Amino acid sequence: MTGPLPPHVQPVALPHAYRLLNHGPTVLVSAAHGDRLNVMAAAWNMPLDFSPPKVAVVLDKATLTRELIEHSGWLALNVPPVALADATFTVGSVSARDDTPTTQPDKFTALQLAHWSAPASIAGTAPPDMPMQSPPLVTGCVGWLLCRLIPEPHMQQTYDLFVAEVVAAWADERVFTHGKYRPVADTPPGLRTLHHMGAGLFVVPGQQVQASLLTPAPD
Amino acid sequence: MTGPLPPHVQPVALPHAYRLLNHGPTVLVSAAHGDRLNVMAAAWNMPLDFSPPKVAVVLDKATLTRELIEHSGWLALNVPPVALADATFTVGSVSARDDTPTTQPDKFTALQLAHWSAPASIAGTAPPDMPMQSPPLVTGCVGWLLCRLIPEPHMQQTYDLFVAEVVAAWADERVFTHGKYRPVADTPPGLRTLHHMGAGLFVVPGQQVQASLLTPAPD
Repeated sequence: MTGPLPPHVQPVALPHAYRLLNHGPTVLVSAAHGDRLNVMAAAWNMPLDFSPPKVAVVLDKATLTRELIEHSGWLALNVPPVALADATFTVGSVSARDDTPTTQPDKFTALQLAHWSAPASIAGTAPPDMPMQSPPLVTGCVGWLLCRLIPEPHMQQTYDLFVAEVVAAWADERVFTHGKYRPVADTPPGLRTLHHMGAGLFVVPGQQVQASLLTPAPD
Repeated sequence: MTGPLPPHVQPVALPHAYRLLNHGPTVLVSAAHGDRLNVMAAAWNMPLDFSPPKVAVVLDKATLTRELIEHSGWLALNVPPVALADATFTVGSVSARDDTPTTQPDKFTALQLAHWSAPASIAGTAPPDMPMQSPPLVTGCVGWLLCRLIPEPHMQQTYDLFVAEVVAAWADERVFTHGKYRPVADTPPGLRTLHHMGAGLFVVPGQQVQASLLTPAPD
């Protein structure tokens, strides 16, 4: 769909976008090119700059999503919550390139995952030589970073490492508001972020600690 | 100190080293060069490969730790637990280059942080043209990844992004054993990992979710 934002989704000011990723959640990486689209999971992601915000993410050469990103120059990082744990594990475990267990053309179709599109006004931010091929934004996530690839062929080829600039971001206001995540205790359990340990086992924030600055020893 | 490993510290097999970082903890980055040493905090880190294990981390140009790494070619990523939350926040907030609030030469001295060194046998893994300048390993952390810088000058200069190969790793057996983290419920609260939200506020794993694979829709 293109149109109004889904319920609970609010824009995030770009200088606050890095905060969606700062605490290390696993993300879903989505992309579209031509009439194809797809989504995968990526625990290996991190912010790379504050403003303009940039991100780094590792994308294996075997993935169709990487191919779509390389062709379109656009991707989205979607922050999935506990309610999407099974979907996150599954899109990280199967490939749209495999004929088994399905010959559906992409994982949105195969897994009946819904998605939405950035408002058309966002496309105006695209450089003329890289018109936006709007990545599908995964419904049910709690944060979204719409990104333009910054081509770094050596890093992509040598390390599978991709760098991108965030051009727009949104968050579920029940989870992230006024530029930061709400306190864990105020976040519904099903909407907390996922941090992948391996083999579909995720840890979830359950506690907060406010640190204090230590006083250095005297000279 | 150089010598036997500290209490509770056990080697981690290299193919399992990435699991220390997979769930997105904030790390302490430490380095030494000549008679100088230092430590900083870095929420922006991620695994980059399984085997041989590689990592990526963002190091601001203003930091002394980065300078030590660029000169020595060696660094360590240390995974701090809740018990080191104040130290983590503090080493991420002050610079050894500042004259205030202290003129101590480094943050280990200023904050009275203890450290240990990798066994001498590890140095034998260093290439002849890059002898190991063993980074200080921060006492009280729960995981340690000793790394050799892989020089990528363009990425370092343009994005402050550093790539390194892990040559040895250790973990506190009360937290991480047999190649993976223990269940959250079995981990003492003070030894759980820190995930930085901003301004010294950390979230801490408090729950686990085991995801299941979804069945794709029929064709």
